Amino acid sequence: MEERRISSAVIRRLPRYFRYLQVLENEGISRISSEELSRRMHVTASQIRQDLNNFGGFGQQGYGYNVSYLKEEIGKILGLDQIHYMIIIGAGNLGSAIAGYAKFENRGFVVKGIFDVDPARIGTQVRGIPVMDLKELESFLSDNDISIAALAIPKEDAQSIAERICASGVRAIWNFAHVDLELPETVHVKNVNLIESLMELSYLLNED
Amino acid sequence: MEERRISSAVIRRLPRYFRYLQVLENEGISRISSEELSRRMHVTASQIRQDLNNFGGFGQQGYGYNVSYLKEEIGKILGLDQIHYMIIIGAGNLGSAIAGYAKFENRGFVVKGIFDVDPARIGTQVRGIPVMDLKELESFLSDNDISIAALAIPKEDAQSIAERICASGVRAIWNFAHVDLELPETVHVKNVNLIESLMELSYLLNED
Repeated sequence: MEERRISSAVIRRLPRYFRYLQVLENEGISRISSEELSRRMHVTASQIRQDLNNFGGFGQQGYGYNVSYLKEEIGKILGLDQIHYMIIIGAGNLGSAIAGYAKFENRGFVVKGIFDVDPARIGTQVRGIPVMDLKELESFLSDNDISIAALAIPKEDAQSIAERICASGVRAIWNFAHVDLELPETVHVKNVNLIESLMELSYLLNED
Repeated sequence: MEERRISSAVIRRLPRYFRYLQVLENEGISRISSEELSRRMHVTASQIRQDLNNFGGFGQQGYGYNVSYLKEEIGKILGLDQIHYMIIIGAGNLGSAIAGYAKFENRGFVVKGIFDVDPARIGTQVRGIPVMDLKELESFLSDNDISIAALAIPKEDAQSIAERICASGVRAIWNFAHVDLELPETVHVKNVNLIESLMELSYLLNED
């Protein structure tokens, strides 16, 4: 969509802009200066202007930003104007928690199926979403347009299952397994490593 | 513990070093060169040397790194040689998933209590951990040495509960609520924002 390559640091900040603009909109605020946004978000106004300039600006000198317009444009950049169908591998505690989190759906992330190998889980449902046999993965993926797969499984199984998913054409992996996946460069991987984020807290406590 | 202030980027990388060294140790590898570690971790050897030099080096010219020693030292830097007692606020899907994840305990992160306001949940247990009334938060915190509190609650409640937790002396918040907390600078906050990490994937898919 965009011509220029945007840095990953900017990409990581975009959802936060979206969130603050959503709050502003909910508060009935229709326009905001970069200085006021800066004060709320605890980032410099120049950082805000620089980030948003990556996408062509949006601000008007002496007026500031139109909150609803900017929110909508950032939403489009983030692909939130589209529906993304997802699957979850692993119907354990974490997989079920992700599947049960209805708020993702409000942003267009719709879980269509959950896969597991445990006979006790296969055939059950989480928030109406069926838990299917992992053996059915390939046939399900060929029948459904799935763009994101969440891996909520032990690290030992993650690489081989991720390869199966990618071989079926899924281009984004949301990886909760405690391992770095080795996948084709055309596949996007976002790691959520819970134990490592706890370790950062532990480091900071230790340093005090 | 350390004299110099270590950058947050280095801190974020430390748990990954620890994880790779753990794998090497499990494979029975007792020493490794920065070049070989670089090949495995997909970071440059010079980055590895630079990161580890923040803590005094550990490597020997012509020998490389002693895997077990380095793992143990990084573990100490990360505070993994200590037990960290935790509480979880929110016994919903996500809070229960965190409480149910026994692997944290193997690294010294021990959940001692879960708090909720829902009468249907209060008095139940998750993996043997009691779910208590949020009203009991302050008395529990004064009786127990808790260093980390996980917030697995809606964003509307997160700020006020975080303030109560910090007022009781807890110095680290693991925040899963979809909001930025405003807390004293002496409190360490690590945000895990699941919907924002999904949005990054959605951005990358959209950009293709």
